[in-house]
Amino acid sequence: MKSRAAVAFGPGKPLEIVEIDVEPPRKGEVLVRITHTGVCHTDAFTLSGDDPEGIFPAVLGHEGGGIVEAVGEGVTSVQPGDHVIPLYTAECGECKFCRSGKTNLCSAVRTTQGKGLMPDGTTRFSYNGEPIYHYMGTSTFSEYTVVAEVSLAVINEEAPLEKACLLGCGVTTGIGAVHNTAKVKEGDTVAIFGLGGIGLAAIQGAVQAKASRIIAIDTNPDKFELARSMGATDFVNPKDHDRPIQEVIVEMTDGGVEFSFECIGNVDVMRSALECCHKGWGESIIIGVAGAGQEISTRPFQLVTGRVWKGSAFGGVKGRSQLPGMVNDYLGGKIDLDPFVTHTMPLEQINEAFELMHEGKSIRTVIHY
Amino acid sequence: MKSRAAVAFGPGKPLEIVEIDVEPPRKGEVLVRITHTGVCHTDAFTLSGDDPEGIFPAVLGHEGGGIVEAVGEGVTSVQPGDHVIPLYTAECGECKFCRSGKTNLCSAVRTTQGKGLMPDGTTRFSYNGEPIYHYMGTSTFSEYTVVAEVSLAVINEEAPLEKACLLGCGVTTGIGAVHNTAKVKEGDTVAIFGLGGIGLAAIQGAVQAKASRIIAIDTNPDKFELARSMGATDFVNPKDHDRPIQEVIVEMTDGGVEFSFECIGNVDVMRSALECCHKGWGESIIIGVAGAGQEISTRPFQLVTGRVWKGSAFGGVKGRSQLPGMVNDYLGGKIDLDPFVTHTMPLEQINEAFELMHEGKSIRTVIHY
Repeated sequence: MKSRAAVAFGPGKPLEIVEIDVEPPRKGEVLVRITHTGVCHTDAFTLSGDDPEGIFPAVLGHEGGGIVEAVGEGVTSVQPGDHVIPLYTAECGECKFCRSGKTNLCSAVRTTQGKGLMPDGTTRFSYNGEPIYHYMGTSTFSEYTVVAEVSLAVINEEAPLEKACLLGCGVTTGIGAVHNTAKVKEGDTVAIFGLGGIGLAAIQGAVQAKASRIIAIDTNPDKFELARSMGATDFVNPKDHDRPIQEVIVEMTDGGVEFSFECIGNVDVMRSALECCHKGWGESIIIGVAGAGQEISTRPFQLVTGRVWKGSAFGGVKGRSQLPGMVNDYLGGKIDLDPFVTHTMPLEQINEAFELMHEGKSIRTVIHY
Repeated sequence: MKSRAAVAFGPGKPLEIVEIDVEPPRKGEVLVRITHTGVCHTDAFTLSGDDPEGIFPAVLGHEGGGIVEAVGEGVTSVQPGDHVIPLYTAECGECKFCRSGKTNLCSAVRTTQGKGLMPDGTTRFSYNGEPIYHYMGTSTFSEYTVVAEVSLAVINEEAPLEKACLLGCGVTTGIGAVHNTAKVKEGDTVAIFGLGGIGLAAIQGAVQAKASRIIAIDTNPDKFELARSMGATDFVNPKDHDRPIQEVIVEMTDGGVEFSFECIGNVDVMRSALECCHKGWGESIIIGVAGAGQEISTRPFQLVTGRVWKGSAFGGVKGRSQLPGMVNDYLGGKIDLDPFVTHTMPLEQINEAFELMHEGKSIRTVIHY
């Protein structure tokens, strides 16, 4: 079948809106009609060419929502008409990782997903007869996409997909990291570095967890108002200080915070986030994705004196079993998605969404088909 | 009073056995007659001059056992005749850290201890009228030493001090890191880097925790026999491999270990220890003390994919409340201290103990007065 799609034909080039060919879903696969998709920094990172695992030409996009159009052989857990969120972190329930009960990093489709292919090692997309690769197992920048059954969360149909799609990446990542990775408890102090979509979502998570103090840190003070409206209590602009920002935060908090979250992908900020944690028990969670080859560093004394360095992917959320509950939390008012959507536009304008993001003017632009 | 002591008069110089003057214990202080003391790498590190916080002249030593000789004003929890282990990690029970229930890093005497002084800011040691500094709040290289009341664990008198003294540092650090910091559980796989006193103790801890596989790693294969006798199941010499040792261990364990312990103080090994942990849940515990200014580093992806980087000081053990129980575990056969004591000698030969350690010929030399 034909599908409108924004295709990344090469690194550093704008996406091109073209009509691609999409093959029917094969065994264990599902054809989804994407109705909405967010545009995320990770898409931009891959498009820029800086992602060493980036493959072109490809259909990017990993923060979408849609409706099941058709299912392949053997698919039993989703049916045509189901409202779904594609998952870049699958949940097969059967691999060593899923069975461990300790992580959401399912290994079922990982190898082929990383190569831009479906689990059988082939692609369903083509353009003028030439193959086009998948991306993160989701490829939500195509109106019709094919994903593995294990990479779909079926959600409440009452949830408007133009909002719920944000639970496909950023919002879930931020909220989930607070609850699943850090396990923030009532009365804890937290510091959140970077007030993009993930950082703002982490603020919401900290509010849900009843953190006593939520310190929002960004070099762009324009972000503070929205952070305040979501529940942040303190605001720090590193540009206002001529010493390491971790020292400022340690001083503000009489020794440091219980938890910090790096929501940018900057390895220097990751160090600051660790070192602003309280001696003896503070934990820092890396959420941001750093550039290729970049490394974090610190003195080991920071860890020997009780700080813990962790990371989080997709907020530690198991997509198929936990995401439906988060969609219900949205419907029940426990998660507020509206403030994240600063712009909406049709697929044809998707390159503008990237520009808005690069200029720091948007939190999320939601694309509709 | 007079006391025989091995004094570090300056960095890089051998200790000198001299008779120093020791003042009586003041308020909240206790005079202890040290009967035995181990010699630990941390003493050697400070003596070498590489420790940026090293102060000279000083009485080093922090792994001792002895008997209370006299108590100062207001001391109620110990009495003359009590058998005690001096603690370089105090436990006051009242500071923010002790009350947190999350850490053993008591802050009660920390500031003055780091300056080589008693809590009132003065020293009890002198030689020819010149002050000599304390070390780690313990100074067990003097037959008579003065320590803070909060820095003493009262132990079972049945425990021979020539063995129990090892619970003042290395053995407790290794065993405690396994139980308190890592919380190893039955069936877990562990990797232990460095088979000195701490690494061997960590092996004992892992055996107690019923780890299914205990991988012992050292560049000196002479250490493997003792490690095997303590319960290690696998032995790896990085010199036998021409690729990063973390790759070897990941391959041996089908993805990595549940827990790794760095018991050396080498920042490159700390990285290997982290990276040999299993994706999704593996945790690496830094126990070794790195040289001044050295830093650990890794790609943040290692953490984002679920590995956790931690550290441990004194094995996370609260000395006053937990060490007496560990001494009883020794008496009950649950902790085997005998194999650690490879050499014993009188105070006069203490410089030989340092030489044996540097040459890798001893696990622990116990000095008797």
